[in-house]
Amino acid sequence: MSQHPRGPRYTSLVEGLPATVPFVGPEAQERARGRSFRARIGANESVFGPSPQVVAAMQQAASECWMYADPENHDLKAALARHHGVGFENIVVGEGIDALLGYTVRMLIEPGEPVISSLGAYPTFNFHVAGYGGKLVRVPYAGDREDPEALLETARREDAKLVYFANPDNPMGSWWGAADVQRLIDGLPPGTVLLLDEAYSDTAPADAIPPIDVSNPQVLRLRTFSKAYGLAGLRVGYGIGEAGLIRSFDKIRNHFGVNRMAQVGALAALADQPYLGRVIGQIAQSRERIGAIVRANGLEALPSATNFVAVDCGGDGAFAKRVLEELIARDVFVRMPGVAPLDRCIRISAGTEADLAILAEALPEALRAARA
Amino acid sequence: MSQHPRGPRYTSLVEGLPATVPFVGPEAQERARGRSFRARIGANESVFGPSPQVVAAMQQAASECWMYADPENHDLKAALARHHGVGFENIVVGEGIDALLGYTVRMLIEPGEPVISSLGAYPTFNFHVAGYGGKLVRVPYAGDREDPEALLETARREDAKLVYFANPDNPMGSWWGAADVQRLIDGLPPGTVLLLDEAYSDTAPADAIPPIDVSNPQVLRLRTFSKAYGLAGLRVGYGIGEAGLIRSFDKIRNHFGVNRMAQVGALAALADQPYLGRVIGQIAQSRERIGAIVRANGLEALPSATNFVAVDCGGDGAFAKRVLEELIARDVFVRMPGVAPLDRCIRISAGTEADLAILAEALPEALRAARA
Repeated sequence: MSQHPRGPRYTSLVEGLPATVPFVGPEAQERARGRSFRARIGANESVFGPSPQVVAAMQQAASECWMYADPENHDLKAALARHHGVGFENIVVGEGIDALLGYTVRMLIEPGEPVISSLGAYPTFNFHVAGYGGKLVRVPYAGDREDPEALLETARREDAKLVYFANPDNPMGSWWGAADVQRLIDGLPPGTVLLLDEAYSDTAPADAIPPIDVSNPQVLRLRTFSKAYGLAGLRVGYGIGEAGLIRSFDKIRNHFGVNRMAQVGALAALADQPYLGRVIGQIAQSRERIGAIVRANGLEALPSATNFVAVDCGGDGAFAKRVLEELIARDVFVRMPGVAPLDRCIRISAGTEADLAILAEALPEALRAARA
Repeated sequence: MSQHPRGPRYTSLVEGLPATVPFVGPEAQERARGRSFRARIGANESVFGPSPQVVAAMQQAASECWMYADPENHDLKAALARHHGVGFENIVVGEGIDALLGYTVRMLIEPGEPVISSLGAYPTFNFHVAGYGGKLVRVPYAGDREDPEALLETARREDAKLVYFANPDNPMGSWWGAADVQRLIDGLPPGTVLLLDEAYSDTAPADAIPPIDVSNPQVLRLRTFSKAYGLAGLRVGYGIGEAGLIRSFDKIRNHFGVNRMAQVGALAALADQPYLGRVIGQIAQSRERIGAIVRANGLEALPSATNFVAVDCGGDGAFAKRVLEELIARDVFVRMPGVAPLDRCIRISAGTEADLAILAEALPEALRAARA
């Protein structure tokens, strides 16, 4: 990109990075196709939407958007601290978990230093590791789950400062029990920080989530309002951790990055736990329905602790990709894992009854076309 | 912060940074005081608020916030490109100008490399330069204006990759004419990029803004919806520049950082130019009224091309600080420049008639108290 002799002199790191968008949004696909999707069940959003109280709070706040939001996110942090039974100093709020992942990599990783994740896990984390010049070391899944023991071994071997582990997992929907996760935490070598991405914790079985221990400076728990709370479009994620680690974010974060609507919406969402409970029930029902639909078509629905279902299409990655493309051609937006052997699956997010009726109609045709 | 023997191993750069909030928000002051401000005229927000069309668009979009926003910001970028008569590929949208400043520093500056700004200019830019280990070289103002000639000389002497220049200026409200700015642009040494912060361009005289030339890879123009558009709380800034420079942001930006309400609000704001025109008129009237109030108290209002007025309190920085504190004690939120000689001033943002009536009432008392 330095084709101009007078132009910018990028850092050598940035010079070598690709210009990319880690996820192609459904909007981009719609623009390319010139046609809208009939069912938007690919990005693990919550089709059930936010609480009516959230919508009302945001509508009320719309005329107040001339004011900068509080750069300390005070009220939201205080409410989150109460909700989780931790201190105010144990919460950091960011522009989605994505931003917090980027900040954490920036805080810890010098160019060339190893960072451990799983082969097929969250691409945006990989984007940030590459963006700060880290050396990404990826451990294969154990079956359809991330492999805590192998992550630990690799962290020890590489003397890694940072390990990423999602529980429940995206893109497979699988999970480990709290005792297994605790063993991972307890086994961390000194000086290794675990990014424990719990974006899908709201829909997980209770016994998949180990107790929060904010005295441990080696674990950052990541949560979000993007999934079961139904606020993906607001970009509010947060981290729960030891006070020193949390305070470090103030060294580098975009202090005004979380906007006023995001603060207002998240605060109202947190206050309406009964609504969250109802949505979690709807998501569970929807997973059941997706399972029934795919089984009726001879496919296998993997067990899921998330708001989506990984569906084993029964062939290789190329076949699953054809199924995906044929669904998209029938205006059903779904996604799929990027690497083998996970890529034998497609990933279908919980949908409304209407969404899933469209899926039920499109899937047999898509399979026929994919097999043709 | 590495008091824990097993705790995080920060990069040496991050280890050495202070944990800070570049601006203390009025909310933090209100919490500390246990009392609300009566007039919020300190953060250069637009008390006149966003267009009613913006409020309506956001209210309508509130229930759609379960969907991620388009990570490519397509519709907003397309509208901005049309508005400015440039190509789609010449626009980057970010989480406020703040985020774009951070991204630009990250793209260009290796630790220890010089970055040029003015002594007393925008603190958040300095925060980002420090955050990436840049060596900040600051040039004194020439009177109450930034000094383009001295900035150029310093950029040449230091062989700087990056120069920051705001026109109109914050915190002084001063400005240079388009020909002067063009001379700065034309004089840039090869490989030097000018960050031309035009956050206050909407309220500037037309002849202060040089024509946009997106063929020049050495200039990034920065604009925002936070000022005259009345949307500070949404965090939408954008850059206009040469396609290669713009594309580079895709290497590192938080792709989902601009949230759905921000996209919807900004798009609606851009579409209502008549409203913007009316607000610009209100801001001009308000500046006149602030001038009249401070002159009635024996102070001098500096000429302003922005939505605020720098008020020379007629003494040194310590005196201006006392005036500021006495205004705050009377529940009037204002701010002031951080360094001499600019700090002989306080900075009063355009206010409603009600805001300025409170200012008119509080200022004589504040001055008496400050002089006592």
